[in-house]
Amino acid sequence: MTIAVLPEVYRKLIAPHLPDWIEPRFWENGEELIALASEAEIGWFDMFDKTDALVALERAEKLKWLNSQFAGVDWMPLDALAARGVRLTNGSGLNANAVAEFAVMTMLAEARGYADLIRAHDRKEWAAWPSAMRELKGSRALIMGYGEIGSTIGRILEGLQVEVTPMRRSARDGALGPDEWRDRLGDFDWVVLAMPGTPETAGMIGAAELAAMKREAVLVNYARADIIDQRALAEALHGGRLGGAILDLTDPEPLPSDHFLWDCPNIRITMHKAGLPTPQIREATAQRFLANCRAWKDGAPLTAEVDLALGY
Amino acid sequence: MTIAVLPEVYRKLIAPHLPDWIEPRFWENGEELIALASEAEIGWFDMFDKTDALVALERAEKLKWLNSQFAGVDWMPLDALAARGVRLTNGSGLNANAVAEFAVMTMLAEARGYADLIRAHDRKEWAAWPSAMRELKGSRALIMGYGEIGSTIGRILEGLQVEVTPMRRSARDGALGPDEWRDRLGDFDWVVLAMPGTPETAGMIGAAELAAMKREAVLVNYARADIIDQRALAEALHGGRLGGAILDLTDPEPLPSDHFLWDCPNIRITMHKAGLPTPQIREATAQRFLANCRAWKDGAPLTAEVDLALGY
Repeated sequence: MTIAVLPEVYRKLIAPHLPDWIEPRFWENGEELIALASEAEIGWFDMFDKTDALVALERAEKLKWLNSQFAGVDWMPLDALAARGVRLTNGSGLNANAVAEFAVMTMLAEARGYADLIRAHDRKEWAAWPSAMRELKGSRALIMGYGEIGSTIGRILEGLQVEVTPMRRSARDGALGPDEWRDRLGDFDWVVLAMPGTPETAGMIGAAELAAMKREAVLVNYARADIIDQRALAEALHGGRLGGAILDLTDPEPLPSDHFLWDCPNIRITMHKAGLPTPQIREATAQRFLANCRAWKDGAPLTAEVDLALGY
Repeated sequence: MTIAVLPEVYRKLIAPHLPDWIEPRFWENGEELIALASEAEIGWFDMFDKTDALVALERAEKLKWLNSQFAGVDWMPLDALAARGVRLTNGSGLNANAVAEFAVMTMLAEARGYADLIRAHDRKEWAAWPSAMRELKGSRALIMGYGEIGSTIGRILEGLQVEVTPMRRSARDGALGPDEWRDRLGDFDWVVLAMPGTPETAGMIGAAELAAMKREAVLVNYARADIIDQRALAEALHGGRLGGAILDLTDPEPLPSDHFLWDCPNIRITMHKAGLPTPQIREATAQRFLANCRAWKDGAPLTAEVDLALGY
């Protein structure tokens, strides 16, 4: 029997379908996870607060395969996992549609001052003219990173008749490459970050990049917080040198109530809610794990295996 | 010379391009409009509050052609205009994209509990789990009325991988006809109203239709307020027999602060803001009017001429 240490929230979707060579142990909180970790040959250690999960990872000396429902695995000790010969599968792509729908929703909402209408409704008042009145149709978006999330955002925006330009590691099919996008920043009404977080992406959008954008452009981040220099962003917004910013990710999370980001003009912080597991995501996550169990047993390739050197 | 009585807000876009046989008189408020009306051969009398515009219409005895930037002309005395031989052009289609973007935005926002995040941001608090977590992808939408607005909503929803079923006066291309949609109401996650307002559409969505919808369905109204029986809607929402309602139109407008609609659970009132003139709409409205001036002089067909008997 192979012992698998798995999250209780997935028990209903997974347990009835597990193959008989797997003996599952389900954990409900960090304490239980840490207690079970040393037995785990197959592990699934996702927690929003990573502290306990990282302790569990250290103790999981028998671990051969670690699964995660998250797309982002930069919180894990990838080098240590590689050294220990642990294979890693992630949730890459599973929440792409939910994130993309959410991202486009926030762009549409900011374009029309939707927050004003929410607040007026809460006060039971008929709102006056809203604070923003832009159409997405005919606008131009640069989408940095064109994996599952970026390309889904791109497809939805094209349905809205936005002119979409991808930026991807290998420029092809009209996409800009890593050396080309900086010179083109002034062309876009929307700059949407959707790339995986890697060491090279940290600080990629700093004062110079913000200054190169259109004054009316909106910066949209559904990738990783550290891609943006938050101080430089706050200065650009306060100085009126940028149209706005939509941030699903911030550093730190949760953002304390006295943090300078909250008070920036034309900022929308969505508190890492874009990729929360919808019912569709939970179902797809369970199905991928079960299929990977079969593949693992058969020695077949695992779906969504992470290259531990690249980090995605 | 032909005297045209036109709104001041369009002076900059129109005046430099008017043909020399037109003598324009611009009005800024209801008083000025009423004072100028009796001279008008060509008129453009749009006001949000229709009282003064209706007085002006009565006084405009020389009127031959009335233009409106609005799509909805059911506030006008269409029979009287027909009897006086006045031709009418409207803004049909000009704000279709803005309305459609707004409509889809509200659907996406309600599907993800976006209001919770706006409120949390206002309090500078990191939000907990939002109150709604639906994906549009894979859901089914009935779109009642498939003119410019309905079909644009449909196209955007198809980009979101929503399964779209149109209802139109003449069933064709997979659309349901006026006698077919009631029996199918239980099939849809979204019922979107986007038809022109006519006497037949009043009260079309009453207690029976609401009861026939899915319990989780959301009713979305970007058409006319009187299509929905508001009392029946409030009862369905309070009784938990409907997932939600998004209303851009209400009766009356503005809705007084003590009106029963504000307090319904899962209701979103957007205060007739979907079709407000964006810069793109103003430009297209001016261009259509100028083109129609040329057509009028040449005796050519007018763009967006209203059939006064049908009302659209």
